[in-house]
Amino acid sequence: MQFHLNGFLPGDPEIADPAERILASGASGPVPDEVDVLIVGCGPAGLTLAAQLAQFPDIKTCIVEQKPGRLSVGQADGIACRTMEMFHAYGFSERVLKEAYWVNETTFWKPDERSPEKIVRSGRVQDVEDGLSEFPHVILNQARIHDGFLDVMRKSPAKLEPYYGRRLLDLHVDPAAGPTDHAVIVRLERDAANEGKVETIKARYVVGCDGARSTVRKSIGRELHGDSANHAWGVMDVLAVTDFPDIRFKVLIQSAKDGSLLIIPREGGYMVRLYVELAKLDVGERVANRNITADDVIAKAQRILAPHKLEVKEIAWWSVYEIGQRLTDKFDDVPDAEIDTRLPRIFIAGDACHTHSPKAGQGMNVSMQDAFNLGWKLAKVIRKQCAPHLLHSYSAERQAVASELIDFDREWAGILASAAKAGGADAARTQDYFVRHGRYTAGTATHYRPSVLTGATSHQHLAQGLAIGTRFHSAPVIRLADAKPVHLGHAAQADGRFRIYAFSRAEDPAAAGSAIRALCNFLTEARESPVRRYTPVGADIDSVIDLRAVFQMDHRELALEAMPALLLPRKGRYGLIDYEKIYCPDLKSGRDVFAMRGIDRKAGCMVVVRPDQYVAQVLPLNDFAALAAYFDAFMLQVN
Amino acid sequence: MQFHLNGFLPGDPEIADPAERILASGASGPVPDEVDVLIVGCGPAGLTLAAQLAQFPDIKTCIVEQKPGRLSVGQADGIACRTMEMFHAYGFSERVLKEAYWVNETTFWKPDERSPEKIVRSGRVQDVEDGLSEFPHVILNQARIHDGFLDVMRKSPAKLEPYYGRRLLDLHVDPAAGPTDHAVIVRLERDAANEGKVETIKARYVVGCDGARSTVRKSIGRELHGDSANHAWGVMDVLAVTDFPDIRFKVLIQSAKDGSLLIIPREGGYMVRLYVELAKLDVGERVANRNITADDVIAKAQRILAPHKLEVKEIAWWSVYEIGQRLTDKFDDVPDAEIDTRLPRIFIAGDACHTHSPKAGQGMNVSMQDAFNLGWKLAKVIRKQCAPHLLHSYSAERQAVASELIDFDREWAGILASAAKAGGADAARTQDYFVRHGRYTAGTATHYRPSVLTGATSHQHLAQGLAIGTRFHSAPVIRLADAKPVHLGHAAQADGRFRIYAFSRAEDPAAAGSAIRALCNFLTEARESPVRRYTPVGADIDSVIDLRAVFQMDHRELALEAMPALLLPRKGRYGLIDYEKIYCPDLKSGRDVFAMRGIDRKAGCMVVVRPDQYVAQVLPLNDFAALAAYFDAFMLQVN
Repeated sequence: MQFHLNGFLPGDPEIADPAERILASGASGPVPDEVDVLIVGCGPAGLTLAAQLAQFPDIKTCIVEQKPGRLSVGQADGIACRTMEMFHAYGFSERVLKEAYWVNETTFWKPDERSPEKIVRSGRVQDVEDGLSEFPHVILNQARIHDGFLDVMRKSPAKLEPYYGRRLLDLHVDPAAGPTDHAVIVRLERDAANEGKVETIKARYVVGCDGARSTVRKSIGRELHGDSANHAWGVMDVLAVTDFPDIRFKVLIQSAKDGSLLIIPREGGYMVRLYVELAKLDVGERVANRNITADDVIAKAQRILAPHKLEVKEIAWWSVYEIGQRLTDKFDDVPDAEIDTRLPRIFIAGDACHTHSPKAGQGMNVSMQDAFNLGWKLAKVIRKQCAPHLLHSYSAERQAVASELIDFDREWAGILASAAKAGGADAARTQDYFVRHGRYTAGTATHYRPSVLTGATSHQHLAQGLAIGTRFHSAPVIRLADAKPVHLGHAAQADGRFRIYAFSRAEDPAAAGSAIRALCNFLTEARESPVRRYTPVGADIDSVIDLRAVFQMDHRELALEAMPALLLPRKGRYGLIDYEKIYCPDLKSGRDVFAMRGIDRKAGCMVVVRPDQYVAQVLPLNDFAALAAYFDAFMLQVN
Repeated sequence: MQFHLNGFLPGDPEIADPAERILASGASGPVPDEVDVLIVGCGPAGLTLAAQLAQFPDIKTCIVEQKPGRLSVGQADGIACRTMEMFHAYGFSERVLKEAYWVNETTFWKPDERSPEKIVRSGRVQDVEDGLSEFPHVILNQARIHDGFLDVMRKSPAKLEPYYGRRLLDLHVDPAAGPTDHAVIVRLERDAANEGKVETIKARYVVGCDGARSTVRKSIGRELHGDSANHAWGVMDVLAVTDFPDIRFKVLIQSAKDGSLLIIPREGGYMVRLYVELAKLDVGERVANRNITADDVIAKAQRILAPHKLEVKEIAWWSVYEIGQRLTDKFDDVPDAEIDTRLPRIFIAGDACHTHSPKAGQGMNVSMQDAFNLGWKLAKVIRKQCAPHLLHSYSAERQAVASELIDFDREWAGILASAAKAGGADAARTQDYFVRHGRYTAGTATHYRPSVLTGATSHQHLAQGLAIGTRFHSAPVIRLADAKPVHLGHAAQADGRFRIYAFSRAEDPAAAGSAIRALCNFLTEARESPVRRYTPVGADIDSVIDLRAVFQMDHRELALEAMPALLLPRKGRYGLIDYEKIYCPDLKSGRDVFAMRGIDRKAGCMVVVRPDQYVAQVLPLNDFAALAAYFDAFMLQVN
């Protein structure tokens, strides 16, 4: 898709009329008096959370935003592979794939050794290592990501729309409230168009997705700690003409005297984002006080690019910033000392908890993963499927991840800022670092530690390529019932369900004593079965825990009619059969999921996957007790 | 995507609320007085044409439909690979891929030789041969295809909406009108809600996409000729429970005594379409007179499926039919004898010209290809880019294709109807026929004969895999400027442009004397250059003829900066560079476009592709005269 040729236009590029490209967004009227969850802030974190909760019409959710309407330009643009996997679960990866720029290769430029005033290409690497994800690393205007979530919200069972023009005044917890009460009392101030009217809303949970200056964070007495940045950068989305040949690649340029320039090509084929190193700031100095103009940023970029020309025709958006790497020590309102005695009611996510330098492409991605982590937990607690202590795991898991990423980001930002020192050695170091840390950038390095949600590695050898605590790494398979080539991981939707992938032994699954049959028998009949225990009477058998089976033989060698009933479950008001639970390896293409993910062919295994796509457990196929114990630790019996 | 679990619901399955799943469609108010093109009928042909013309805001198009609103259930559902390629050009293939059922394999069942009252599986074949198209064969409710086109129309520069509730009363051509006048005078009767008001509309061209009983066809004195079918079939979309193991495959069942059953699984994972052979009719008898009920159809299907059970829970749609294979001898209003002296003003397309038995999955696909063939020709003539005699080629090309397909269809329908005779031999014959004729079913067998639009085969050896007269068979390539893996054929959009794919010789393209450079020089500078001759002054250089180049070496070995300027054209009001014209083979994946499409590596070649994606010419890279002559034969000089 090519667009923005005659100037940047916000909104859906497939709509010809600029006046119709931005769909109306926003609820009218006052906010509700009382909700289960109040989300403060319509950024990536807030919208990820809202779109998740919107899947459950029995949960009352409200999302408010200080701005008068939806975002249309600027801000973040990098979408990691891992984030694309999440978008698939939300149902809009196809549109992003179509519209976004794909980062295929990254090139590196450094001063020419013979004439350092000129830059020359010093390296070229594939951006994402082969097989890291079934999705590419892409770049798309943050506003279009918002649009994707807003669309999901609008179409969802709960039909959520944000309430714009609401500034959070304050919030407090009613000290007399019980644990399930709507204890958080929040005051919002409407915008001038609504005469600054103050609204009060009571919520069981409040989630602050309100950015680096988060009022919610301040209200729970937490602070961002960390470096105050001392490097000023300019960022600019431009339509430009250049003879620089790599303008449609992601490029890192380190000049001899003028610092660094990072080029990120953008969607539509013409626009490009430039990150331009501007100046070292004094301690405590703010870049805003330097009165840097757009022309200054362009002039600096031109000097770095020399001898190539850069003629800027239009600036779609630009900004200067000096954001450092900062982190809050806990992401909810419960002090460490009180974890055992108190349940969280207030959470923070995204930039409210951690800030990154934009150039590592982390901020938006980590923020959305925060919200994806929190969303299903809130839903399960509110819907009484899980015990509320589960909510402690949000801060525990995400704070640790943020801390790791901040370390990575600090190192990366330092390397990028080392332009002045950039001789050949540094350029090589940069490229080497870039390659080694590809998994961080791709978002697939996240690794949750053992906890109530994440098992120990005792049986990791049964599925070496599906590391416990990391996201479930999909692989191509063939669906038995219709021979469709699909991705195993795409069984996961953002629907709050746990999934068990049962990888079969090398045996006849139809045989009465087969391990798969024994597992299905256990799950269907045993008193300890988590499927029996946690699925409400009358609900579809896969509505809480969704069992899928993967066999080793070609799909033409396997008889559907011999499969256990649990793998052909009857669902809905008609008791129709769900035919999408059984898979075989894609042997014709040579991509055998058992080989790709290191599954023990003799023993097989069960892989339990959380609603946010993280591997919770790898267990022997017959370890029914461990399977039951896993769910018993945090789920609530319903029947 | 799974949906329809609790009953069939029309509209967009991603929208949770059934009341919001069907977007409003339809223009309000009276039809315009005067238009360039009036399209009668909102079926697949009419909408394909309307969506094509909607890309040109300078063309006044009106589409009317007798029904009160958009289609929501039933009718056709098969989408051939070739049609998916066209959907990609229209911009909605992604959505269809996501929502549709994919036909991966087809199975065949016949009476068990030992106990013929039972059926047994006799064969299983891959549905589409490897490499036939980059798209699969899919199945989706015709209404959702309509939705795709309606969406394209709504978002297009012309923002077209159909006028519903208009019945065509009559039309006549003003005998005094000149060749570019609005000579066709059409009377439409509005529905009862509008008191049957009669509207008159004058059009330069009228296209009858008004079905097998086409009033437009009758108005030009043409008739459908061919067999009157003597077999009655039932067709039924059901939600059902069965123990038949292949219910999610396309299946052809030939029973010993009860005739044939064709199973077509449908989108959403639960619904299935059944084609049930009902009865042999007497000569001239209509199936409607037999008072066949839905229960009759189900009972017949149950008998054929025995010993398997079939329990129908809901019927989404059903019908009985006896459609035969019929064909009109010409698709416009000009008699053969007057072709040299008269220009067509009235066309017919789709079922108005030809009817097929539904089971070959041809009808909707051929109809859309009719309209795709006509659309760009009408646009080019109305926009004065092509001489009006081009319009004669529509009937010439499409009538021949329809005739071939009718022959194929008649043979196929005969085989399917031969249930009573179905011994082992016949079942084998059916399967064999199915495999041999896969290309017809896929829609890729269409082969236009040499004409003003389609060159001779003199140079076919330069690109053996891109047969002149057939659709351009895409192949994977790497885009030079950003290393993105893309499909070469996806450069084609439904934008009315011709494309020239220049396949390079095995030489350094940057060298001054390279063949690609010579071609670019010719196209840029020569007086005879079709690019110079037919591109309006001030328009983008690729707006009429779009040159793309494909090189033989890996993209890392090729320098963008050494490319001819025509391959990095400057476009739009800013003169931005279009970086998407140059490709390299995808050597890493082992899929080299030169090998895949039999391109002569030593000589290279030019492949000229029409706006409807058909290969018009294969020429030597330096045959500038032939290239110019091709365009000169039908295009109009603008400068």
